[in-house]
Amino acid sequence: MPHETGTPSEIVLRQLAANEARHLDELLSLLRIPSVSAQGTGLEDCAAALAGIMSSGGIRAELLPTAGAPVVYAHLPGPPGAPTILFYGHYDVQPPDPLDAWHSPPFEPEIRDGRIWARGAGDNKGQLLAHVFAVQAYLATGTPLPVGVKFLFEGEEESGSPNLEGFVAANRDLLAADVVITSDGPKHDSGRPLVFFGLRGLLYVELEARGANRDLHSGNKGGLAPNPAMALCRLAATLKTPDNRVAVDGFYDDVRPPTPYERELLTAIPFDAAALAADLGLSQLDQVGDLSPLEALMFEPTLNICGLHSGYGGPGGKTVIPARAVMKIDMRLVADQDPDDIWLKLQRHVAQHAPQIELRRRAGGTAPSKTRPDLPVCQAIVAAVRRASGAEPVILPTLGASMPDHIFTKTLGLPSVGVPYANPDENNHSPNENLGLAEYYAGIKTSAYLLEALGRPQGSGTA
Amino acid sequence: MPHETGTPSEIVLRQLAANEARHLDELLSLLRIPSVSAQGTGLEDCAAALAGIMSSGGIRAELLPTAGAPVVYAHLPGPPGAPTILFYGHYDVQPPDPLDAWHSPPFEPEIRDGRIWARGAGDNKGQLLAHVFAVQAYLATGTPLPVGVKFLFEGEEESGSPNLEGFVAANRDLLAADVVITSDGPKHDSGRPLVFFGLRGLLYVELEARGANRDLHSGNKGGLAPNPAMALCRLAATLKTPDNRVAVDGFYDDVRPPTPYERELLTAIPFDAAALAADLGLSQLDQVGDLSPLEALMFEPTLNICGLHSGYGGPGGKTVIPARAVMKIDMRLVADQDPDDIWLKLQRHVAQHAPQIELRRRAGGTAPSKTRPDLPVCQAIVAAVRRASGAEPVILPTLGASMPDHIFTKTLGLPSVGVPYANPDENNHSPNENLGLAEYYAGIKTSAYLLEALGRPQGSGTA
Repeated sequence: MPHETGTPSEIVLRQLAANEARHLDELLSLLRIPSVSAQGTGLEDCAAALAGIMSSGGIRAELLPTAGAPVVYAHLPGPPGAPTILFYGHYDVQPPDPLDAWHSPPFEPEIRDGRIWARGAGDNKGQLLAHVFAVQAYLATGTPLPVGVKFLFEGEEESGSPNLEGFVAANRDLLAADVVITSDGPKHDSGRPLVFFGLRGLLYVELEARGANRDLHSGNKGGLAPNPAMALCRLAATLKTPDNRVAVDGFYDDVRPPTPYERELLTAIPFDAAALAADLGLSQLDQVGDLSPLEALMFEPTLNICGLHSGYGGPGGKTVIPARAVMKIDMRLVADQDPDDIWLKLQRHVAQHAPQIELRRRAGGTAPSKTRPDLPVCQAIVAAVRRASGAEPVILPTLGASMPDHIFTKTLGLPSVGVPYANPDENNHSPNENLGLAEYYAGIKTSAYLLEALGRPQGSGTA
Repeated sequence: MPHETGTPSEIVLRQLAANEARHLDELLSLLRIPSVSAQGTGLEDCAAALAGIMSSGGIRAELLPTAGAPVVYAHLPGPPGAPTILFYGHYDVQPPDPLDAWHSPPFEPEIRDGRIWARGAGDNKGQLLAHVFAVQAYLATGTPLPVGVKFLFEGEEESGSPNLEGFVAANRDLLAADVVITSDGPKHDSGRPLVFFGLRGLLYVELEARGANRDLHSGNKGGLAPNPAMALCRLAATLKTPDNRVAVDGFYDDVRPPTPYERELLTAIPFDAAALAADLGLSQLDQVGDLSPLEALMFEPTLNICGLHSGYGGPGGKTVIPARAVMKIDMRLVADQDPDDIWLKLQRHVAQHAPQIELRRRAGGTAPSKTRPDLPVCQAIVAAVRRASGAEPVILPTLGASMPDHIFTKTLGLPSVGVPYANPDENNHSPNENLGLAEYYAGIKTSAYLLEALGRPQGSGTA
């Protein structure tokens, strides 16, 4: 019996419903493995267990070596001519500390109040398994997959994915696909489903100004020795314009302004500036140029002081000329800014304004990533999420945050779409991480809808 | 038998030489009392012991109450028409920590390598006793004092002399004198004797900028929340001119430029800018306007960042918008700047440039103090030091540092002169404080020369 267009068959949906207990058990077994990449623990075990779960349900998974933790990879071909989805996820987790803030041990998952409590429940073991179990429902019921599917699950995402770009670049054929889908992070704060199409990039630098070779008495040497904190302040003041834009020459050269369609999407995003300001304890949000807050968050790069430290910081007063001052700055970059190019421009700026200050670049940097939301495949994904959830998804042209999505959009040249399934209060990266059971099962179902939607002629799923 | 003009009589000098062992014993007894004003320990005991030493040698000393530690006071009238010297000193000491850095316990004085090792040896018990023992030599030998002498020894100098100004203001008659002499701190680095005539003042403030009510993720909120570290940097940059002068409106209004005589004194001060820069690890000393280093140190006020702290300061990178930023600034003031007036001007500056930043003033502030070095009494003191030591004193119009000397120059309206006796490596405020035995005995002798010099018609002692 043919099923409704874009909707998984009754038999697939029944299979999903009938297997919830097993889906939960398999997630719990994965959550018991403390695969903390920052500490290098449990990664091989977790990769093997994940491959075992996949293979036991008919997805023959392989462990592929990298310079670090192995990649779990699988490929299930689709019908001739059908597109291929590459599902990306990660089986490593954040360190669990502070341990005493947890209500139950982070690697002894508990079900309480309709949620699974464990490190990695939402970030990302529960969400990557949703894709696995959706595909397995097709295999178990003998339903032909509407699309080709590839899985790429890495074990170092929480450590900055140091080997992902190299792995992807060396395995372009293996990873050939039509779209990358990642389910990570929470849904929209409103509880509505979320789909996003880009991420800001990141360049992180440190500046160090040095004065004398030791802290000096500000009376005995005041007027004789330079103050490195003042040198950094003066330089910092040259980095921004009075209206909060970045004053580094050429910084905006490659910034791509929002398209008319993206501007239209902005207006549809639920956003209450006054409520957010109140929550943050601000009289009003920051004003960047003449941009609206959402435009500033999604289409405007930043230059932000993350830390600034020099001299005495204790109670009371100490009369000292500090020997050194260190400033940490991160820059969130937007398409099509390039971290290497911005690094050169920043070097020129510092050399011109304060050549005595040392500028250091921290590990690599992340390029911004952008997928056009008006692509048919993107529209199809939004439609699938809408149909699976029965709710109107919140569509973000881009997130303010940074993930190495450019590896897919730039290195592989693919559209890349984020479809997070977790509850907004999942506490990812924090104690008491959790994933709602309803969100988990709904995520699996949504993945089945994604398989259906992308198997049909793309574009026909738009509302 | 009349003695040489300006020189103590043979009988006084012999008395000093014959009593060195007793002078040392009495100092050691005082050093055994841990009179740490910051900790409120041993102050009454030390005051009583000091008064006992004075009284047993004929100087009837009283303990006068303040809101804090008592003042030890004594008065010995001079011949009719003779001037009166007010000797100021303090019997409290710095805390001794870190204790494990001491080679012998700080309150168990030891004689090693020709020095007395103990907390307070030079700062200030040994130096204040020099004046006491010089006077006692006159009394013991029946030699008439050439001048009137008053002693004012407080017990809270190392805690910022919180009660000295009030005590002095309330006891103007008791403290009436012609000149204040203080022996504290080390001689000149060259080993030559030192005489100084002023001190810079001090105003200490804190600035606090606030952003959101918590640190924020710089990706998720970058572009929405203001950065308090940047706000402080921008404000700091408005506080100085490109040539390192202070850009606060009216800041220099009351600055008194050096007189021709003071400029002449500057040229006679041993000062090797290149050697100092090398010692500090600098390619060159700071350049303030077009001032020479010594002019910048003595006649130019400063505005100096003592500390600046915001956000993340650990290793690696953390991507955060800090919730707050705090900057501590001290200003060294020169005559005739007034801390209250500068405070008002700084308030206006902050209100104009960054009204959202909170400006706080720390405890009181110290006015600058200046005594004209060409006064006859000053010339007489220099001559006495020259004669007592047989060396040419280094004369500083002012020190770069700050002490509450303005209480004498402003509240009492007296000339105030610094005549430090300690060795340059006395380690005051540091572990292993010490006073050379030679410096101690020479200090007592110098005090006798001061009594003689000021008893003669002033001005005749100049070279």
